[in-house]
Amino acid sequence: MTGAKAPVYLALLHHPVLDKNGKLVTTAVTNIDIHDIARSARTFGVEKFFVVTPIEALRALAQRILEHWRTGFGSTYNETRKEALSRVLLAPDLDGAIVDIENESGQRPRLVVTSARKAAGAVSYADFREALAESPVPHLILLGTGWGLAPEVMERADIRLGPIDGAGDYNHLSVRAAAAIILDRLFGAR
Amino acid sequence: MTGAKAPVYLALLHHPVLDKNGKLVTTAVTNIDIHDIARSARTFGVEKFFVVTPIEALRALAQRILEHWRTGFGSTYNETRKEALSRVLLAPDLDGAIVDIENESGQRPRLVVTSARKAAGAVSYADFREALAESPVPHLILLGTGWGLAPEVMERADIRLGPIDGAGDYNHLSVRAAAAIILDRLFGAR
Repeated sequence: MTGAKAPVYLALLHHPVLDKNGKLVTTAVTNIDIHDIARSARTFGVEKFFVVTPIEALRALAQRILEHWRTGFGSTYNETRKEALSRVLLAPDLDGAIVDIENESGQRPRLVVTSARKAAGAVSYADFREALAESPVPHLILLGTGWGLAPEVMERADIRLGPIDGAGDYNHLSVRAAAAIILDRLFGAR
Repeated sequence: MTGAKAPVYLALLHHPVLDKNGKLVTTAVTNIDIHDIARSARTFGVEKFFVVTPIEALRALAQRILEHWRTGFGSTYNETRKEALSRVLLAPDLDGAIVDIENESGQRPRLVVTSARKAAGAVSYADFREALAESPVPHLILLGTGWGLAPEVMERADIRLGPIDGAGDYNHLSVRAAAAIILDRLFGAR
């Protein structure tokens, strides 16, 4: 469990996301993203982590990798990995993940986005951390691969978190590092 | 620049580290570790990031990859990656990194370790963040690959940071995620 009152979910979107030129693309599913973010999600008490891709062959490949760690050789070789990956689900699109959460929790989740770019109306991590501790509604935090979530996803957000500011104007974290920091800011022990 | 008064350095050690059975080993250098941690280090203003391995062939391989991004095709394909990787240095062992820092800064760095295990005398991130803002001495934060830094490194530490506590007793972050969280806790904008 996180420090939140209601369950918190996480989704890594491989579509619709932007490439470095701002073009709408579908990125490939990366094994290390699944492992790293699943371990961070498990550490900070996220209920389920959705890997979202419209490409059926990539969902099938991810499923095979998950099974290796959940029930295959990996499950006895590394039990902590098995525990982290047991909470990973695959979904064809954002709405598929939302429906799964509705079926599981009985409630429609509020959508939370983050962006490396500054935006009007962004909520601070400290304020959202407090709000989560009181909210009875589940939340789904969305992470984008490539150069970030497409505008059509950003526009659906109920909550927009600010960028992760470092020490200067350079802000090019990997999605694995950004996920870890976001979860620590919201749920890490203080 | 970080929020620290003196420069802060980071080192990822591939030896001496422990394997899952607590045995002393040398791990392989992983390309994604270099990229992810270099990007996090650059974002949070770390002066230099040392990739430490005693294996000369792996240092040579890492050097070739760095050159691809610094001066080769990658330098024009992705300028932000070039910027992050320009601060990566290779060292054969911890003492090599310390000597490089002494040569650069004119001072011997204080060694900082982190551990996933709880330890007596551990300093909190909040306290160390404040201490760094006042300290005139450079610091070198050490990260271990595999199952963590060997006791012989832990014993040399001047400062020991506590584990990154999540929401429960599961604490198996990747070194990439741990590095991101440590730097955010010490230098992220608040």
